[in-house]
Amino acid sequence: MNEKNIIQLSCPMPGFDFDVINLGHGSGGVLTHKLLNSGVFDVLKNDLLNTKHDGAVFELNGKLAFSTDSYVVNPVFFPGGNIGELAVNGTVNDLAMCGAMAKYLSLAFILEEGLPIEEFWQILNSIKKSADKAGVQVVTGDTKVVEKGKGDKIFINTSGIGIMHEKAAIGFSSIEEDDLIIISGNIAAHGIAIMSKRQGLEFETDILSDTCNLNFTIKKLLDRFGTLIHFLRDATRGGVASVLNEVAKDGGFGVEIRQKEIPVTEQVNGACEMLGLDPLYVANEGVFICIVNASVADAVVEILHQDGNGINAAIIGNITTGHKGQVVLQSNIGGRRVVNMLPGEQLPRIC
Amino acid sequence: MNEKNIIQLSCPMPGFDFDVINLGHGSGGVLTHKLLNSGVFDVLKNDLLNTKHDGAVFELNGKLAFSTDSYVVNPVFFPGGNIGELAVNGTVNDLAMCGAMAKYLSLAFILEEGLPIEEFWQILNSIKKSADKAGVQVVTGDTKVVEKGKGDKIFINTSGIGIMHEKAAIGFSSIEEDDLIIISGNIAAHGIAIMSKRQGLEFETDILSDTCNLNFTIKKLLDRFGTLIHFLRDATRGGVASVLNEVAKDGGFGVEIRQKEIPVTEQVNGACEMLGLDPLYVANEGVFICIVNASVADAVVEILHQDGNGINAAIIGNITTGHKGQVVLQSNIGGRRVVNMLPGEQLPRIC
Repeated sequence: MNEKNIIQLSCPMPGFDFDVINLGHGSGGVLTHKLLNSGVFDVLKNDLLNTKHDGAVFELNGKLAFSTDSYVVNPVFFPGGNIGELAVNGTVNDLAMCGAMAKYLSLAFILEEGLPIEEFWQILNSIKKSADKAGVQVVTGDTKVVEKGKGDKIFINTSGIGIMHEKAAIGFSSIEEDDLIIISGNIAAHGIAIMSKRQGLEFETDILSDTCNLNFTIKKLLDRFGTLIHFLRDATRGGVASVLNEVAKDGGFGVEIRQKEIPVTEQVNGACEMLGLDPLYVANEGVFICIVNASVADAVVEILHQDGNGINAAIIGNITTGHKGQVVLQSNIGGRRVVNMLPGEQLPRIC
Repeated sequence: MNEKNIIQLSCPMPGFDFDVINLGHGSGGVLTHKLLNSGVFDVLKNDLLNTKHDGAVFELNGKLAFSTDSYVVNPVFFPGGNIGELAVNGTVNDLAMCGAMAKYLSLAFILEEGLPIEEFWQILNSIKKSADKAGVQVVTGDTKVVEKGKGDKIFINTSGIGIMHEKAAIGFSSIEEDDLIIISGNIAAHGIAIMSKRQGLEFETDILSDTCNLNFTIKKLLDRFGTLIHFLRDATRGGVASVLNEVAKDGGFGVEIRQKEIPVTEQVNGACEMLGLDPLYVANEGVFICIVNASVADAVVEILHQDGNGINAAIIGNITTGHKGQVVLQSNIGGRRVVNMLPGEQLPRIC
């Protein structure tokens, strides 16, 4: 485990009489109850979770969003975060990209036999911390254990329910000709941070994952600009290139971007060159694409610059009715080329 | 794969240009889109899923239930079902046990590199079929792929949102002294069906998993008896013994059950004897425990007997203020013994 990743435990680990997860922790019997009752419920506690029902019951009214993601990132601890905060932020952000504020999360673990309890505890504490930061509650959960060699330390699924912002009208069908395309920050940090620690690829760098919750940032934009925000998508697996290709294909427009406007740090750029990667395809976990009516683009960028998650935001391109279904990049040296969707796999298990 | 498990495909498999899942199918790029667009969306299609957003957006009002479960059953295809229908029925049933009718499901796959596409396709078709049968829609999803040897064919997470029955007041705190305990059917079939196919344990039997959706059965009970139904729980991992121990411990009562009233088929009983197992600890996937006011217990059983999922329902015991926190079994030969929670692990990955 990386030293940077030693997490301040908000809840100290109780004295378990076991050091590693074993198959009994997934039995539904004594050991499962021990694991849950002597700690997990204490860390995550809230009124809904405390009922210990098969599910959580609550009153909600109105337009809701519902999203799910499984997290299989490798390594589990990486510079700038771990799988726990990724699992919270990722689903909070998926909801935000629908125009919703996350309210309730489910949390399901698939643990591999032999996972050190201490690592599990650190991840659990990160989940709690990230959930608190995003203003979301973990209200229901599940724990399964698989035999050694049938999983990989820990996989986490979070599903989330969010309440739609009343002014949100986000979707492919809201995109219009001449809309401008904004990116919220420096790209490709998450993917490079993971790769720097991946077995067989390790290299020295200070690059940290950009994982963070974007829900409050999105709320600011929707509060102010409402339906003039046409489309939102976080550029995770497949990177910026994949999101823009989805826009071109599912939105039915052409997409134009200018390489010189796309924010990338020198360090990330250098690492990408070393690895032979195009940063446009590298995964992000705290960067989103925002397609807006041209009249508000400058104001959107201005608001993002004032937000901790958007200080490097920039307008990177526009929507056109030309070259429908294609993303075209104007390169730094003046040429134009089509940016395709990621054809194969860049690096598995980036999130 | 067992011949009994050949699934009638409601949607024929499209001509994929690949026979097995590879890491690219989890990339978020071309291959992920190919897998989803050339089939998955077709099988599961509905208006909410079709938006291809990061999440589903819908209007819902009132009291809701939210539940999650990951399914890691091994083998993936077993007598009487497969992991796909288990994943739908399991979460539908968890919601039903809260007193809610499942409405929307999320569906998240963790696929192991090398999984034959044909098996994936059969599982997907089962998911669709089970979802239709339970009256629930899959509205959002996720697909991850892990390297060969870092998973086991396929793990599935489903999370579900259900609408609470207006008369439901299910929970440990609703249980009262002298309540009667009903079991909805013959126990231990699912666990034995799985074991009969488990590597190293195989034995010949016709026993099928009891996996089924219980939501309509529960609705009938709540429609008729409302708040006189005090507690519901499906007896999955850890079996009947674990549920009753939870009742005793979290409900703060004593539980008394009579062995001779507990319905088990001869075949299941025989298999349990052969394997040295107590059927009370063996997993079920379509059997629930229902704790009710004594005045309606006979009527509840009568209604269950008329329901396809409850033909073997029986009153098996009662709630007492004696021996708080303990489950006491009156055995067939007249003795009394404490039934503890499952101490270790009976057989991993039963669901």
